[in-house]
Amino acid sequence: MKQPGDTRMDTLLANPALQLFGITYLILVLKMVAVGSYTSIMRTRRGVYATPEDYELQGATPKGGDEDIERARRAHRNDLENILPFFGVGLLYALGNPSMFAARIYFIGYMLARILHSVFYIRSMQPHRTIAFGVALLLMLAMLVTTLVRLV
Amino acid sequence: MKQPGDTRMDTLLANPALQLFGITYLILVLKMVAVGSYTSIMRTRRGVYATPEDYELQGATPKGGDEDIERARRAHRNDLENILPFFGVGLLYALGNPSMFAARIYFIGYMLARILHSVFYIRSMQPHRTIAFGVALLLMLAMLVTTLVRLV
Amino acid sequence: MKQPGDTRMDTLLANPALQLFGITYLILVLKMVAVGSYTSIMRTRRGVYATPEDYELQGATPKGGDEDIERARRAHRNDLENILPFFGVGLLYALGNPSMFAARIYFIGYMLARILHSVFYIRSMQPHRTIAFGVALLLMLAMLVTTLVRLV
Repeated sequence: MKQPGDTRMDTLLANPALQLFGITYLILVLKMVAVGSYTSIMRTRRGVYATPEDYELQGATPKGGDEDIERARRAHRNDLENILPFFGVGLLYALGNPSMFAARIYFIGYMLARILHSVFYIRSMQPHRTIAFGVALLLMLAMLVTTLVRLV
Repeated sequence: MKQPGDTRMDTLLANPALQLFGITYLILVLKMVAVGSYTSIMRTRRGVYATPEDYELQGATPKGGDEDIERARRAHRNDLENILPFFGVGLLYALGNPSMFAARIYFIGYMLARILHSVFYIRSMQPHRTIAFGVALLLMLAMLVTTLVRLV
Repeated sequence: MKQPGDTRMDTLLANPALQLFGITYLILVLKMVAVGSYTSIMRTRRGVYATPEDYELQGATPKGGDEDIERARRAHRNDLENILPFFGVGLLYALGNPSMFAARIYFIGYMLARILHSVFYIRSMQPHRTIAFGVALLLMLAMLVTTLVRLV
């Protein structure tokens, strides 16, 4: 038999906006892990590591930086600056009972824009990267302002 | 007619501590976006970009780093190291039904200290920057310990 | 007398999986603060600062980078890339009413692996650091996939 507490938890994730938010956020975390793993794979392939003990472990001679590895690290840092603040913004937005029409545009649009941003960043595609960055930022700001107005 | 699920969501954001937390967090995300945008504006003005494709897009000749841009990037990284962990700490603190007197001091104090930290960082004002950093950190640690004691 | 809203809040943190998640997350934030503070202490001891105004404040002559300080900063950045996304993943996982047996393995295992990761990173211990990193990442991905399957 279910406890009352369990029911409330079920109810929380049964909120359709929160459910959609959860799905898009988790896919974006997978995307961030993919960028991080791409960096690790490139380090192994090119023999360019971050620390002396890594060179020792691999029996390799220390080298200078690699442009593609630095590019992947910048894409990852841009994710930290954007996707991580989005978690709080999207969660608070979803808790405010938005219309599912708006929630779908915001969450799915944000997810797609950030996935494209990573692809464009790693493939050095400009101005595509800046456009994807701008679209995602505007969607997050729209969610943020909507939630702020509701809360104040 | 409202669904029971909707009512619960409304109730969640109707918790006054959670509401105040939401407002202060969203304002701090706006502040982080401001620091990031300031970096972008400085890059355009000074013609100092992060990647070769950005130089190509702008038709500019690659240059070395710029001290003010690096300063803004450090302020932004300091936000990632502090404001992002604060989201989880503040959310869990607010869910624990704190007194509104304490919640106001913690949330508003944290928000003001972090806004001042960015201003002091970008204007190179020391020891003001270190004091603002320390005040915000102490407030977050106080919330963290209070919540940890409540949960254990 | 308690308000219905209060009861729901209490109920939310009374969810044992959420409670355990809160405890492990808060301990990991303490660990991140410890890595950040270690960096600050090393800067003061070795007289190696991040900005010209810090050198001025300390009355010290600017120096080049210090390998141990850069190592601590990399450990801190690795925390940002891993522990911060874990907050959202763990919270959504806990809200999905997992079995407490699984929740204990995931949350406590993740916490221990990330604490060891910092110790191994700062002490330059390889391949220990990579193993701790991998264990934590696999535990987070298992939570992520479990939650995603439940939400879709």
